[in-house]
Amino acid sequence: MRMSELSARTGVAVATIKYYLREELLPAGRLMSATQARYDDAHVERLRLIRALLGPARLSIAQVRRVLDAIDAPEADTLARLAQAQHAASVGAAVDDLGPAEAVLARAGWRFDPESAEVAQLAAALAALAEAGYEIPEENFTAYLDAAAVIAETEIAHIPTESAEAAIRYSVLGTVLVEPVLLALRRVAQQDAAYRRFDPDGSR
Amino acid sequence: MRMSELSARTGVAVATIKYYLREELLPAGRLMSATQARYDDAHVERLRLIRALLGPARLSIAQVRRVLDAIDAPEADTLARLAQAQHAASVGAAVDDLGPAEAVLARAGWRFDPESAEVAQLAAALAALAEAGYEIPEENFTAYLDAAAVIAETEIAHIPTESAEAAIRYSVLGTVLVEPVLLALRRVAQQDAAYRRFDPDGSR
Repeated sequence: MRMSELSARTGVAVATIKYYLREELLPAGRLMSATQARYDDAHVERLRLIRALLGPARLSIAQVRRVLDAIDAPEADTLARLAQAQHAASVGAAVDDLGPAEAVLARAGWRFDPESAEVAQLAAALAALAEAGYEIPEENFTAYLDAAAVIAETEIAHIPTESAEAAIRYSVLGTVLVEPVLLALRRVAQQDAAYRRFDPDGSR
Repeated sequence: MRMSELSARTGVAVATIKYYLREELLPAGRLMSATQARYDDAHVERLRLIRALLGPARLSIAQVRRVLDAIDAPEADTLARLAQAQHAASVGAAVDDLGPAEAVLARAGWRFDPESAEVAQLAAALAALAEAGYEIPEENFTAYLDAAAVIAETEIAHIPTESAEAAIRYSVLGTVLVEPVLLALRRVAQQDAAYRRFDPDGSR
């Protein structure tokens, strides 16, 4: 298809498509002449992924490029691709002391990459708790670890296997876009639990 | 104690304490003369709560005021106080259509306030998924609902009961500060699950 049709099918303006081509987020089309190129369904898919990553998932152009590099890495296996894509979508956190995070993770018995952005995020989150003088009750912490393990196990079990693009789309968008869903579900579930504890007969 | 001692005990500068007094976040001390007031342990506690809410929890001055109003509301019962404090700490989201969120919550069987900021947050999060064309696999969604229910149940069961201040400190700081912990735990648990699925013999 021509660029005009690619634009019509995806709803992305031609000028924006040209920008993605210049930024090498979108692979070049097949050249038909010096000024004409043709695009195919792979371009449609890639364009939709770029839009989702830049729009709802709010990644930067640089992060999107790293996610796409993970898809296109010629020799990487699934684990390496996923790790690369996930790290690209993670926000770096500068932390002095990984000790508390590593203690939590040792208790959970998980395998993890101690140099990953995810572990640094956990350390930063624990440091903010400590700064606020807030201690998570022991049973709550156990519930968090158990919930995270069940969620992650289910998510990884459902990674699509038909292509690297599908796998990374699922895991990067799933990680980033599901986060606000999880947080909102917890807050509404707290409403339910508070009603049941403080208004068990449903008088309100 | 004098303001200088209140400052020394909490590490908050005198100018900052005066600002909180002017903003009526901190109740006035007991006046000893026209220019001298005395403060007590309740001021120390309140000051620590203000610092935690403004610092690690990143609430605005206006949000902190609403949280403190919930603590000080003379006639409110625990449920009303908690709801007021939680709403104060929630980020409002403008959404057109609560339908998808209400469908999810009906499925979960939870009691909830359809006009609350939490339900609007859920609707906004689901709208972002739809915009990205991302569908959560059914079993994953079930895992999210179950995890949220278990977490909320455990958290509400551990609300301290000795004072409204303690209850609200626990629930507001817990809600806000635990969110990044939960998200980081999920991301690290995904590492563990990915290792187990794609590298079961631990060769890396």
